[in-house]
Amino acid sequence: MRPEGKIASLGIALPEPPAAVGAYVTHVRTGDLVTTSGQLPWVNKVMQYPGRLGAEVTAEEGYQAARICCLNALAQLKAELGSLDRVRRIVRLEGYVHCTLEFRDHPKVLDGASDLLVEIFGEQGKHVRIALGIYAMPLNSPVQLVVWAEVGE
Amino acid sequence: MRPEGKIASLGIALPEPPAAVGAYVTHVRTGDLVTTSGQLPWVNKVMQYPGRLGAEVTAEEGYQAARICCLNALAQLKAELGSLDRVRRIVRLEGYVHCTLEFRDHPKVLDGASDLLVEIFGEQGKHVRIALGIYAMPLNSPVQLVVWAEVGE
Amino acid sequence: MRPEGKIASLGIALPEPPAAVGAYVTHVRTGDLVTTSGQLPWVNKVMQYPGRLGAEVTAEEGYQAARICCLNALAQLKAELGSLDRVRRIVRLEGYVHCTLEFRDHPKVLDGASDLLVEIFGEQGKHVRIALGIYAMPLNSPVQLVVWAEVGE
Repeated sequence: MRPEGKIASLGIALPEPPAAVGAYVTHVRTGDLVTTSGQLPWVNKVMQYPGRLGAEVTAEEGYQAARICCLNALAQLKAELGSLDRVRRIVRLEGYVHCTLEFRDHPKVLDGASDLLVEIFGEQGKHVRIALGIYAMPLNSPVQLVVWAEVGE
Repeated sequence: MRPEGKIASLGIALPEPPAAVGAYVTHVRTGDLVTTSGQLPWVNKVMQYPGRLGAEVTAEEGYQAARICCLNALAQLKAELGSLDRVRRIVRLEGYVHCTLEFRDHPKVLDGASDLLVEIFGEQGKHVRIALGIYAMPLNSPVQLVVWAEVGE
Repeated sequence: MRPEGKIASLGIALPEPPAAVGAYVTHVRTGDLVTTSGQLPWVNKVMQYPGRLGAEVTAEEGYQAARICCLNALAQLKAELGSLDRVRRIVRLEGYVHCTLEFRDHPKVLDGASDLLVEIFGEQGKHVRIALGIYAMPLNSPVQLVVWAEVGE
């Protein structure tokens, strides 16, 4: 099953791609690569789970926040490409986790995005990843994600 | 008007591209992409506005620091390409802001770079962006920026 | 001398490429670029020098940690390509240093990776670099590195 069919069969409705919060754009294509701006966990313009992992936000909530960021990133890719069926593979996920000094479960949080990518794209959804614990995040977001994808056709 | 003409008409004098502060180079081309090392706000080898946003550095000073970093990044691109007229588009801006825990105005700071890119390159200056609040910055710099550009011809 | 011969002449034994610590892969190729996931200083599944630069970890230990991360990154590139002789050039090093607020010697730490890349690849080992001081690192790692390389042939 291709990505758009998979999304439908999972009952996922992609959101409208969130707008930029500054003087930039939310997605760009260069050659066969598409990449997004840093995605935050917006749902209908309300940030989900604001705060820091290890303090106001639990690891399970962080997992959900990462999943929401990833849905927004996929909406950006779709806005660039018209259809996610044009994605040949997901290349890279940059995962920035807003957290306390003692927090160590960045990988569990970011699996909220990585798991979704593999659910939708299968083997082609597997990507390299960086995971960093960030001190201060724009708008007090719990997570910020960037997705890089390779385009086919 | 093309980028070099635009820079002249704006009365901007690009600086000498700053040297690396370690065992690396300041710009590289791979395929049709050119990318820079992390750029700091050097003016004539003096760092401007050292310190943290939210503490020693105001948001307006941060905006100016981001603009200076971006001028240095453009100097690196020009050193790679000979002329900024060879830039087909600006692709990505990585914006790292040295700040306190409570600081939230990362987007306003980084607009100092993004606004400059759009002034010079117009529609082709629009880029994706990440904005992170960084705990400890090399040399106590207030901002560090990376620019990715796509080359034409 | 080509990279594999150089590695042998330096008496370096590349490790097994470390496994991912989450739902992702450790290396990917897109077009002529290969990039790795964030590499940590594992030696035989034991993290070397855990903690923060400026506190539990000295700058010299950080240099060694960065060198170990880089060896692991090279093992990932070799797993993707079969031989490091297929690397046309090293493109970019992302250097994330786990540190205290006052720590400033990020460049010295990351030279542990950059020096190794130039030892092995010579002029083709020179790369652009970002250097950031990170507040909280997965698994309390002192350093996390990403290497981007361009593939020849």
